[in-house]
Amino acid sequence: LPARAELARLLPEGTVVEPSAHHLHDATEAQGLAGHADAVALPETTAEVATVVAWCYEHDVAIVPRGGGTGYAGGAVPDGGVVLSLERMRAVRALDAPLWRAHVEAGLPTAQLQRVARENGLWFPPDPGAAEQSQLGGNIATNAGGPHAFKYGVTGRWVTGIEAVVPPGEAITAGGPVRKDAAGYDLRGLLVGSEGTLGVITAAWLRLIPAPEAALPVAALYADTGAGCAAVEAVMAAGVPAAALEFLDAGAIRVAGGAFPVPLPDNAQFMVVAEADGSLDEARRVRAELTEVLAPAALTLHAPETRADVAALWRWRDGVSLAVASAHGGKVSEDIAIPVEHLREAIEATLEIGARHDLAACSWGHAGDGNLHSTFMLDRSDPAALARADRAAGELFALALRTGGSISGEHGVGTVKRGALREALGDRGLALHRGIKHAFDPKGLMNPGKLVP
Amino acid sequence: LPARAELARLLPEGTVVEPSAHHLHDATEAQGLAGHADAVALPETTAEVATVVAWCYEHDVAIVPRGGGTGYAGGAVPDGGVVLSLERMRAVRALDAPLWRAHVEAGLPTAQLQRVARENGLWFPPDPGAAEQSQLGGNIATNAGGPHAFKYGVTGRWVTGIEAVVPPGEAITAGGPVRKDAAGYDLRGLLVGSEGTLGVITAAWLRLIPAPEAALPVAALYADTGAGCAAVEAVMAAGVPAAALEFLDAGAIRVAGGAFPVPLPDNAQFMVVAEADGSLDEARRVRAELTEVLAPAALTLHAPETRADVAALWRWRDGVSLAVASAHGGKVSEDIAIPVEHLREAIEATLEIGARHDLAACSWGHAGDGNLHSTFMLDRSDPAALARADRAAGELFALALRTGGSISGEHGVGTVKRGALREALGDRGLALHRGIKHAFDPKGLMNPGKLVP
Repeated sequence: LPARAELARLLPEGTVVEPSAHHLHDATEAQGLAGHADAVALPETTAEVATVVAWCYEHDVAIVPRGGGTGYAGGAVPDGGVVLSLERMRAVRALDAPLWRAHVEAGLPTAQLQRVARENGLWFPPDPGAAEQSQLGGNIATNAGGPHAFKYGVTGRWVTGIEAVVPPGEAITAGGPVRKDAAGYDLRGLLVGSEGTLGVITAAWLRLIPAPEAALPVAALYADTGAGCAAVEAVMAAGVPAAALEFLDAGAIRVAGGAFPVPLPDNAQFMVVAEADGSLDEARRVRAELTEVLAPAALTLHAPETRADVAALWRWRDGVSLAVASAHGGKVSEDIAIPVEHLREAIEATLEIGARHDLAACSWGHAGDGNLHSTFMLDRSDPAALARADRAAGELFALALRTGGSISGEHGVGTVKRGALREALGDRGLALHRGIKHAFDPKGLMNPGKLVP
Repeated sequence: LPARAELARLLPEGTVVEPSAHHLHDATEAQGLAGHADAVALPETTAEVATVVAWCYEHDVAIVPRGGGTGYAGGAVPDGGVVLSLERMRAVRALDAPLWRAHVEAGLPTAQLQRVARENGLWFPPDPGAAEQSQLGGNIATNAGGPHAFKYGVTGRWVTGIEAVVPPGEAITAGGPVRKDAAGYDLRGLLVGSEGTLGVITAAWLRLIPAPEAALPVAALYADTGAGCAAVEAVMAAGVPAAALEFLDAGAIRVAGGAFPVPLPDNAQFMVVAEADGSLDEARRVRAELTEVLAPAALTLHAPETRADVAALWRWRDGVSLAVASAHGGKVSEDIAIPVEHLREAIEATLEIGARHDLAACSWGHAGDGNLHSTFMLDRSDPAALARADRAAGELFALALRTGGSISGEHGVGTVKRGALREALGDRGLALHRGIKHAFDPKGLMNPGKLVP
C-alpha cells in the first residue's frame, strides 16, 4: 500500500509496520467493533510523529492516534488510514520530585507513572481502570477519570502542559512546566479530551502531589438500592471529605461479588465503597466519620487496615468491569454522568431499560460523581442483542440529558456516541465543535469519524 | 446615539444607561487606561443579555462584557460599542448544600458566594484579591487565581458548567450541575479565561467542598531573598501539603510591612506565608511541619492561632496590592508565572529590570505556583515613566517565556499583553487562537481588541 511504503522510506527501519489485529480495536471489541488500516506507525520521537502527520496531511491520508487501546468508545478503532501508536514513546523525560512535577511521553503506561511517583514520595491521583495497559497520552486525550476523581478530579486537572503535533505536521506546546497560565485560550484544556481529533499528544507536563500517608477504604453492604443511595447522599450531606465514593448494584455484586476479599452477606443488593486518606491520623478520623454515616443502615462493613488488604479491595474493584464482561461473553457499557441527586433514578432506570430490551443489566461506578457504568450484558456474536443494546443506550443518554447530565462521564464519544453527542450539543454547540475542529484540522484527517458529529 | 436609543426600546426602562466613568475603566486605571462607550446595558436576565448581543451583532456594534472591573489587563476597558455589565444579575439561583454545589449568576460578588458557602458549612476555595468587588462571571472569564490556588487550583477548576450568550445572540450551556463530563470538546474550559471574547458568561454551576475546620497560617521573615526562596523550595521538597505558599520581597515589605499585624524585624527582607488547613488536628500537624521547615533560617515567625488573628493576616495580605499602588501614586503590575525553580531569578530580575529603567520595583505573590506580581511603581501622570514600565514589562515577559513560563499566571491578556501573547503563541498558536475566535465570533464584535493578537 502506498502509505506504508512511502512512510517507511521517511522513517527508521521498523517504524512502519503492517496492521495486526492488536492495533485495530480497543475495548469495544467486546461489543464487536474492529477496524482496518493501511499502515501502523510506531514513532520513537516527536519529530517522527511530525513526519507521519505531515506526510499524511499532504497526501490526504487519515491519522488515527492510538494509546493503550483500552477505550470504551471506539476512539482508537481506525477506518482506514495510518494508525499512529505512541507505544514506543514511553520515556519519563524528567521527574522533578522536589517540585512535584513530571514530564512524560504520551506512551508511558499510567501505572508506570504511578509507580515512579510513589517511589519519590509523590502521587498522581487519576486512576482509570486498566492502568497497566492504558497510556498517559490516551488518558489525556480522553480525560480519563477513576474512583479518586471524586476528591482529586479527572486527568485534565493534573496536566499543566501538552506537547502535541497538530496539522499540517507541527509540534506545538500548550502550557508547560508552569503551574498557572492565564494567557490566551486554554489550548491545553481543549486538547484534553479531544480524542485525537485535533492533534497527536506526544508528551505532557504533569502536576503531582505529596503522597498521602494512608488511604483507608470502607465497603458497606445494603439490602437494597434505596438504602445504598441514601448512604451515598448522607456521606455528602454530612460533609465528609471522602477521597472516593463508589457503588455497585445488585447485578454487579452478583457477577463480581464472589471474588470480594471477604464473604458477602447473601442478601447484599448494593455496595458503597468510600475511602478516607491523608496522614494516618487524618485518614483514621475521616474513616470513622464515614463509618458513622454508612453503618446505621448497612448489613455489614468491610474496613481493611493493612496496605495489602487495602490494595486487595481496590484490585477487586478494578476487576469488576472484566467480571461483568465475562458473565455473558460481552457487554455494552455506558458511562452517563448525572447530577448526584438522580443516582437512584439512573440505577433503577438502567435495570428497567435493560428489561424492556430483554437484556441483562447492571451498573456500578463513581457514585459521588454521579457517574454510572450502566451495562448491558450480552453475547457479542448476537447482532440482534447488540442492536437492542444500542437502543437501550439511547434511552440512557436521554435520561442523562433530561436530568442535566452528560452522555459520558469518562469514556468519551469516539464513534459509539457521536449521534448522542449531536443531541446533547444542539445546533449552536454542534457548530462550535465543527468550528474548533476546522481551526485545528481543516482537512478533517485527524481521527476522522470520531467525536465531532 | 443610535445604539443607546435602539437598545433602550428593546429592554425594560432603566436597563440602558449613559456611560459613566465607573463603567469605562478597570484596575489599569492606576496606569492611566480608560475607555469610551456608546451605551451601558445593565440586563437583569439571560434573555435580556441575549437581546443586547443579538441587536449589537446584527448592527455590527461591539459588545464589552463587564464584571466587577477589578482586572489588571484592561480586559473590561471599552473602545466604543456597548458595555454589557452583569452587575444586576447577582442571584444565587440554587445552593444545594448537601450536594456541594451552587448555581449562581455572573454578577454575584465573589465574597458573597464565599459567605453563602461558609454559612452552609461549605467552601469555594478560589480567593482572588478584591473579592468584595469582583464578580464570579469576571473571575471565570479571567480564570482568576489567588493564594489558595496552590493547593486548590484556580477558578476554572471549580466550574462544572457555564451558561453563556454567544454570537449571534443565543444562550448556550456547556457542562452543568454534573461533576464529570467527557462528552465533546471542553467548551466550558474554553469559555473559562476567554475574557469576554467568545461570549458573555451569564451564570455558572460551581463545585464546592466541605469547609476545612481550621486554617492555620505561618509567616516567616528572612534576611534576604536567597534564604526566603530556599525556604519555599524546602517546603515543597519536604512534601508538606501547604494550602497556600506566598511571598513578599523587600520592596513589598517596605511599603506594606507597617500594617502587618505584629511588628516586623528591621532587617526583614523577605517574607514567606504558608498555610496549613484541614481538621484542627490536621492543620496543627501540617503547620508544625511547615514551621519545622521554615524556622531554621528565619529571623522570626508569626503564627496566629485565633480565627480573628488568622483573618487579620489574610486581610493584610489582601491589602498588599493597594499599599504598593499607593506608595508612588500608581503602578504597573505584571503577573508572570515561571517554573518554581526560577523564583529567585525572577524576583531578582524584577529589581534589576526596574533599576535599568529607572523604576522603583518590587514583587510579591504566589511563590509555590511560581506566580509573581512583579510591579513597577510610578506616578501615573508621568507618561515617560509609563513608557519605561512598558519596556520593563516586555523584559519580564521575555524572562517568563525563556524559562518555560507564562506571561500571565492570573490577570489574563486583555489589551495590555496582546503583543506579548503573540510572542508566546508562535504562528501556529496564533492561528489556532484566531480560528477559535472565528468559530464563536465571526464578526469579531465580542470584546474586540482584547486577548486575540
